[in-house]
Amino acid sequence: MRTRPLKVALLGCGVVGSEVARIMTTHAGDLAARIGAPVELAGVAVRRPSKVREGIDPALITTDATALVKRGDIDVVVEVIGGIEPARTLITTAFEHGASVVSANKALLAEDGATLYAAAERHGRDLYFEAAVAGAIPLIRPLRESLAGDKVNRVLGIVNGTTNFILDRMDTAGAGYSEALDEATALGYAEADPTADVEGFDAAAKAAILAGIAFHTRVGLDDVHREGITEVTSADLASAKRMGCTVKLLAICERAADGRSVTARVHPAMIPLSHPLASVREAYNAVFVEAEAAGQLMFYGPGAGGSPTASAVLGDLVAVCRNKLNEATGPGESAYTQLPVSPMGEVVTRYHISLDVADKPGVLAQVATVFAEHGVSIDTVRQKGRQDGNGEAALVVVTHRAPDAALSGTVEALRKLDTVRGVASIMRVEGE
Amino acid sequence: MRTRPLKVALLGCGVVGSEVARIMTTHAGDLAARIGAPVELAGVAVRRPSKVREGIDPALITTDATALVKRGDIDVVVEVIGGIEPARTLITTAFEHGASVVSANKALLAEDGATLYAAAERHGRDLYFEAAVAGAIPLIRPLRESLAGDKVNRVLGIVNGTTNFILDRMDTAGAGYSEALDEATALGYAEADPTADVEGFDAAAKAAILAGIAFHTRVGLDDVHREGITEVTSADLASAKRMGCTVKLLAICERAADGRSVTARVHPAMIPLSHPLASVREAYNAVFVEAEAAGQLMFYGPGAGGSPTASAVLGDLVAVCRNKLNEATGPGESAYTQLPVSPMGEVVTRYHISLDVADKPGVLAQVATVFAEHGVSIDTVRQKGRQDGNGEAALVVVTHRAPDAALSGTVEALRKLDTVRGVASIMRVEGE
Repeated sequence: MRTRPLKVALLGCGVVGSEVARIMTTHAGDLAARIGAPVELAGVAVRRPSKVREGIDPALITTDATALVKRGDIDVVVEVIGGIEPARTLITTAFEHGASVVSANKALLAEDGATLYAAAERHGRDLYFEAAVAGAIPLIRPLRESLAGDKVNRVLGIVNGTTNFILDRMDTAGAGYSEALDEATALGYAEADPTADVEGFDAAAKAAILAGIAFHTRVGLDDVHREGITEVTSADLASAKRMGCTVKLLAICERAADGRSVTARVHPAMIPLSHPLASVREAYNAVFVEAEAAGQLMFYGPGAGGSPTASAVLGDLVAVCRNKLNEATGPGESAYTQLPVSPMGEVVTRYHISLDVADKPGVLAQVATVFAEHGVSIDTVRQKGRQDGNGEAALVVVTHRAPDAALSGTVEALRKLDTVRGVASIMRVEGE
Repeated sequence: MRTRPLKVALLGCGVVGSEVARIMTTHAGDLAARIGAPVELAGVAVRRPSKVREGIDPALITTDATALVKRGDIDVVVEVIGGIEPARTLITTAFEHGASVVSANKALLAEDGATLYAAAERHGRDLYFEAAVAGAIPLIRPLRESLAGDKVNRVLGIVNGTTNFILDRMDTAGAGYSEALDEATALGYAEADPTADVEGFDAAAKAAILAGIAFHTRVGLDDVHREGITEVTSADLASAKRMGCTVKLLAICERAADGRSVTARVHPAMIPLSHPLASVREAYNAVFVEAEAAGQLMFYGPGAGGSPTASAVLGDLVAVCRNKLNEATGPGESAYTQLPVSPMGEVVTRYHISLDVADKPGVLAQVATVFAEHGVSIDTVRQKGRQDGNGEAALVVVTHRAPDAALSGTVEALRKLDTVRGVASIMRVEGE
């Protein structure tokens, strides 16, 4: 074994960073044996240097992250500060100064992965980011490496723990959205400003990363259709239950049937209770991958949290250090297929639509005509008069598979019907 | 991209080998793009050269596998013939002649992995074998690489599809063992001689491989406690159901609580219906991995079959080819912990025991005394008189956790009691 240690610079020392530093210390012997050389924490860049950080030599702490990555003796930079800047500049600067990079930064990778990959390649360095998607669940490595000889056709999963916790509470405790959000916040599953999670931004970033890797093409954040869970109601969950379904926020990346384009989207959807994703509870994550030869694979585990994320970071750290000793690099960007990303309108899916309609004869015929005019075939209709006797009835329509554009065109036309008082909810149905 | 192709020799052209050859042809462009150089099938060693092999140039077919691996221009040897010899000699010869090896041979890796690893290392070549355990499910790579910065404490899973199919049929259709085995054979899930599967040899080989990688120590086939499913009865399944459980053949690799030893075992066990492994149906495989930082991860998918296994082989082929171009090697054997493997007697587990006892007062007290004398604490007892009024009763005892030696000592002593007419079944209870 080499005795001269590999030097690691840690950018950020919050929940994940402090756990990375702790494991690097407590498991130093194991890491050295697995890498073939010891690793040494050479510097830790933080914003608040005065904060007490147990187990970290105060002499390593600096507020000057730029100077740290420019030192020239750093072998690997671990970036766990998040956000676009200064993370992007620090990472590209790290490559320029000879370091490889392990990052957990999904926002940056989704926003501008191409710049990072290009900088890594230009300087012959590694960019690894298992921790950016689904915490400790090995997903990036299986997609990049295990399935490198296969053709992935679909990735479908729960990749945001906060929203899964909220929907799970709404389902099992019958809670309303804001009540469930309050509980998630109280338990630390949701941040003070939950926008990134509940509006689907976090899941969309992960969908962009997964789609890019799965289909060997570039998928940007703008290519991902995004809907959050803020509009999901207790009534939607109840409707789902009546159909033998539950509601999950899904990230779905698909290759079109003709193989010439791909799509990526994040939205709440009903899935059958018999689907394995339906039983993913609380803040857990799970991802299905469908590949031509492998068939259907599922990966399940904790999708966030300091320790799980640190596990993913350290796995990458070991790989990157081994590559460094081998004077080799792991897989870089693979975007050779250059498949275009189709808009949401071209996605083929199913709708579950709840309508408030006038309680009089002929309404169903009118509604059915609108569906037919848009080429959307109806699977089931459930019609019932309201209890309050105000002359309104509820109509629940579940469609067969159709292009999303035809479905949303149908809904638009339904809204214009005099006999349709309102569209109570629209939800896609997946996983069948 | 390099234009000179990497040359691949295929040893074996059965269900898996022919699928590997097919995908290498149909997906040649994708493989080249992902590797950075084209790959070329340079020779195929078979036993029956006269068999028509669609899509394979007859000029590539040879019966002389040794000459093929000795050619000197082969970059990667793909070994899918199985068994110990000639596979072992062919693989070591391949390394001697400069090739890296991708193998799906669980029996050989479990029996003599150390020899293969040593030969690979001596010649600076790669030995990859994702396909040896759980087909297409990425498991070796996540354990070797994704979790390389973590500490794995437990691997628990269903790693044999044939036995899972049989137990699933016994559970859902109420079939007896031999009836379910017949169905498995008819559907192609069981081989004509099902011994390797139903006696647990196949699962034990996988357990040895998984334990070795998970704990960074050498675990041989002899270190694995092995029990098959041939003794499992419909009554066991019914008993399990009454307890809210089902029966699965589990491979379990554990680090002892004090961290100083490990165990590996394969046996049927009752697991609660609420455990995710309980819902793994038909011939599917699923493996739980518990690691210190990552927490509990699950990997699920098809555990066998030509296409899924070929997917795993090709993923390894891409990795090995990339390493070759990089003039680097991937992870080799990691056995630095040298942890001893403890015998089954030291495993801490729970027993579910069905006894046929004399239907008279004082029997339960006698039985309970035997448990107490062996230091085994009883969790629940269910006692009932038989319908046939022959003076016998049934006693079902579920214990708390205790060393397996204490549990089997208890059973031995119970057998000697006059009032115990027979031990109808003993099964371990796991996953709680």
